[in-house]
Amino acid sequence: MNALDELIDSLSRLPGVGKKSATRLAYHILGADSAFNRKLSEQIGAIQERIVSCSICGNYTEDDPCEICTDGGRDRGVICVVEQAQDVAVLEQTHEYRGLYHVIGGVISPIDGVGPEDLRIGSLVSRIERGEVEEVILATNPTVEGDTTALYVSKLLEARTVRVSRLALGLPVGGDLEYADRLTIARSLRHRTAL
Amino acid sequence: MNALDELIDSLSRLPGVGKKSATRLAYHILGADSAFNRKLSEQIGAIQERIVSCSICGNYTEDDPCEICTDGGRDRGVICVVEQAQDVAVLEQTHEYRGLYHVIGGVISPIDGVGPEDLRIGSLVSRIERGEVEEVILATNPTVEGDTTALYVSKLLEARTVRVSRLALGLPVGGDLEYADRLTIARSLRHRTAL
Repeated sequence: MNALDELIDSLSRLPGVGKKSATRLAYHILGADSAFNRKLSEQIGAIQERIVSCSICGNYTEDDPCEICTDGGRDRGVICVVEQAQDVAVLEQTHEYRGLYHVIGGVISPIDGVGPEDLRIGSLVSRIERGEVEEVILATNPTVEGDTTALYVSKLLEARTVRVSRLALGLPVGGDLEYADRLTIARSLRHRTAL
Repeated sequence: MNALDELIDSLSRLPGVGKKSATRLAYHILGADSAFNRKLSEQIGAIQERIVSCSICGNYTEDDPCEICTDGGRDRGVICVVEQAQDVAVLEQTHEYRGLYHVIGGVISPIDGVGPEDLRIGSLVSRIERGEVEEVILATNPTVEGDTTALYVSKLLEARTVRVSRLALGLPVGGDLEYADRLTIARSLRHRTAL
């Protein structure tokens, strides 16, 4: 295996990159500006040193605690619980939410051998026990595992004086009834909102 | 811009990688095995030192001249002319061709300011003038520029005693008439083969 095949092999291990795209990327890199390659190489090599998990919320950050946890302007009475650190970035892009986050690092999935003890649920409860939190928004994905995990966390918080909510389900904005699945349409009917 | 955004920015400059895929790749790299990242980083950083252009045919290679040019088992009477070095790999995968190659490094395209003098056509003629070559297969792409370039090279070789051929055009194997374009169908009719 020569250097080019080795690069193609590594690139094809990335998610969503098949053999063909990996080949295309490798040839592009081979023909690219050497300064670009040097930069990309350094960025990949250093990313895990430069980006760490926030010790409070679990979000990816350069400084620990993260920008969101240390931001005095954010509402410290709400915690939004997400599966993965990248979900924080997705929610932040909406500019709709001004509270804090808690990354639990996955979902309860017996098939994959992931139980509640493998997730950052204990640290979530500790944060809530400190008393400042009034609402917990469960923003795990609307999948079987995400729902199970949300249910588990909500049961755990029942005894505490926090409101627990879940992201709304329904038709995606700009979507088309024709292409929506039956479960989503049924949900959007059941939870219709008054005009 | 933090380290993660910088990595996303670099990845999104790769061909076929949009902002969303770049984000997905960056998060994957962030969570990947550090040995994998080190390897990928080194491979990208070193690829241009390890892979060079063959001084005879222009193919990408670790050793100059390349494996194909130095392979005594190949038919030295045929040269297949391709636009780019990656086309050599594509043709080699068919295991159909046992001759040599010549990468001209692009196509004649007045709009992009590329003339014959910008391509490796002179070195192709020199190779043919050495007398060993009996046939030249023009395997530039079946596009306006590829056809123009093939025509230019064939005119140039008219005075020489070499056969000049072009890759066959027609329906792709496993294709469907319904989805083929009119020009391709017309070609496949005109150049129908006897059974």
